[in-house]
Amino acid sequence: MELTLDGDVVRAGYEARERFYDSRGYGKVRNGDIDLSPVEAAHLLYRGDIESIDGMDFRAFLGSAAVSEVDFAVYKDLRDRGFYLTPAREGWVDDAAGADFVVYPRGKGPWDNEVAYRVRVIGERDTVDATALGGCVLAVVDEESEVTYLDTDRREVSGTSDAAVPATAGELLGERVVCWEPPAELYDQAFYGQQLGDDGAVQLSLVEAAYLAQEGLLTVDGGADAVVGRGREVEGDRFDRRLAVYTALRASGVAPKTGFKFGADFRTYADVESAENLGHSELLVRVLPADHRFEPRDLALDVRLAHGVRKTMVFALTADGGDGSGDSGNGNDLEWIAVERLTP
Amino acid sequence: MELTLDGDVVRAGYEARERFYDSRGYGKVRNGDIDLSPVEAAHLLYRGDIESIDGMDFRAFLGSAAVSEVDFAVYKDLRDRGFYLTPAREGWVDDAAGADFVVYPRGKGPWDNEVAYRVRVIGERDTVDATALGGCVLAVVDEESEVTYLDTDRREVSGTSDAAVPATAGELLGERVVCWEPPAELYDQAFYGQQLGDDGAVQLSLVEAAYLAQEGLLTVDGGADAVVGRGREVEGDRFDRRLAVYTALRASGVAPKTGFKFGADFRTYADVESAENLGHSELLVRVLPADHRFEPRDLALDVRLAHGVRKTMVFALTADGGDGSGDSGNGNDLEWIAVERLTP
Repeated sequence: MELTLDGDVVRAGYEARERFYDSRGYGKVRNGDIDLSPVEAAHLLYRGDIESIDGMDFRAFLGSAAVSEVDFAVYKDLRDRGFYLTPAREGWVDDAAGADFVVYPRGKGPWDNEVAYRVRVIGERDTVDATALGGCVLAVVDEESEVTYLDTDRREVSGTSDAAVPATAGELLGERVVCWEPPAELYDQAFYGQQLGDDGAVQLSLVEAAYLAQEGLLTVDGGADAVVGRGREVEGDRFDRRLAVYTALRASGVAPKTGFKFGADFRTYADVESAENLGHSELLVRVLPADHRFEPRDLALDVRLAHGVRKTMVFALTADGGDGSGDSGNGNDLEWIAVERLTP
Repeated sequence: MELTLDGDVVRAGYEARERFYDSRGYGKVRNGDIDLSPVEAAHLLYRGDIESIDGMDFRAFLGSAAVSEVDFAVYKDLRDRGFYLTPAREGWVDDAAGADFVVYPRGKGPWDNEVAYRVRVIGERDTVDATALGGCVLAVVDEESEVTYLDTDRREVSGTSDAAVPATAGELLGERVVCWEPPAELYDQAFYGQQLGDDGAVQLSLVEAAYLAQEGLLTVDGGADAVVGRGREVEGDRFDRRLAVYTALRASGVAPKTGFKFGADFRTYADVESAENLGHSELLVRVLPADHRFEPRDLALDVRLAHGVRKTMVFALTADGGDGSGDSGNGNDLEWIAVERLTP
């Protein structure tokens, strides 16, 4: 079969429609005939189902400007995995925005009105807006043309870690606050800080101390402002973003602790009853300004690490860039995006 | 016991020398008496072995400018782990440069002339020069005052992956080169590229293709320059650095493949006999300009991930920043620094 490229569509007739759409889910029906996108036509060429397009064989067509190699790599990979899928073009699928392919559940096709994944294709060297994530699967084509799938999802964070803590006093020492005689609940039940030794003293991180001081649970020379000021000195704007996220996590009943060993801002415990019986931490949280653009490689690194330690990677996007204007911390201006590896 | 701070040294007499140096390895002997560094004196205060320094108790002394909380956290942690250690001051230890503490093997002390670790202390928010790594243990104190130890070591890379490959032709397509009819050795024995399908075609990454073209093993329109040019278009200077490292790895008998899934530049196979029987890849390589400054958190992330997948993280520093001046690639201007987690 020899077909013709018309703009960005390969036109084919009734016979092609029967062979390619009706039985295998390629293309878009138009007036009883079929339109194929170039990537679909390339796949049919690759399989030998059609011989040429405008005289071009697979090799020539893939080398032409009509087909993106990156799209082809993902299209082929998903077909190899047994899926039918449709290019997310306006008029071809519902809600085309933000996706490159709409993938149907295995055994289903474009005629079934069920969607398994909305896939967005990027090359390893492209960047992707943080706000574009959520509700789609990123298919990242690496330099060797292998595809890594990352499922992205907007989500809520919640837990039952909400032990009450009596107020206490602390002393700001460099980049930490030491509570020399804290109530036992501070560390034992609510899991703030670390024990300095055996005598009960607890050292708080600056973000923990700033939160407790803002909540009226910690008195320190200069008040919360002194702690926040020290935080900004050593971390800049990032401190405000981290404090906003820390506050939102605590407000959601989740106990955040440093994620340093995992290269993250926080790890979180949803159901702390005591510091002695912590259980497993569920999330790794990385705090980012909402205008962040991800390098796919950094995403792959974070998500792979989280998977390896049986946690879920969550990116906390602070909408206002964490300007410390005072309304941060209510969590309303935060977005949580969970990203996990997916094997379709 | 009440001692006195004299500049940056706490002076003590013969009795203190017997109690603290002779039996427990604190301080530096001077004329039969003993000098203690402030961090050592703080630890003795913390333990209750001395009562005060210039009238200050532990709490006051730790809060004074004399003691770094970060140094104290590491000093205490190593003492808690059963080590004797000496501040790396000029005149106190041999080769003080580049270290903060010299740590003796367990059961040994400053009188034994044996060193287990040379430790460099940094806070989570400090950065560290890439060239300062190698031959020391980084002790990173995180915001919650927990200590993570990272052993850094200059090393060589070598292997036996050196299968010969007949020359072949390729076609530059976007960010890859496709060899439509390659010799079987290209992929099967030497493990270049990925198979495009079942018909034998192999797609090479730009860095693989540039290397093969420079070695005279790949002909492509425009030659090696066309491939390198495409690489620079999509990666900038980073492409030259990666090509220099790729070339040095191949020259060392190691087969590099993309490290994308691990967030690295390459993973490497030291002893490839065939693509079918690859075995485990040993190293993750991240390519960096030699003037790179590490954020400790990024280091922790890379090293933790590598550990989780049973690989060693190696940073390849390109001395000239990879300017593509033509002498890159002989490996002489590269430094390899392996970083691994350490539990002292």
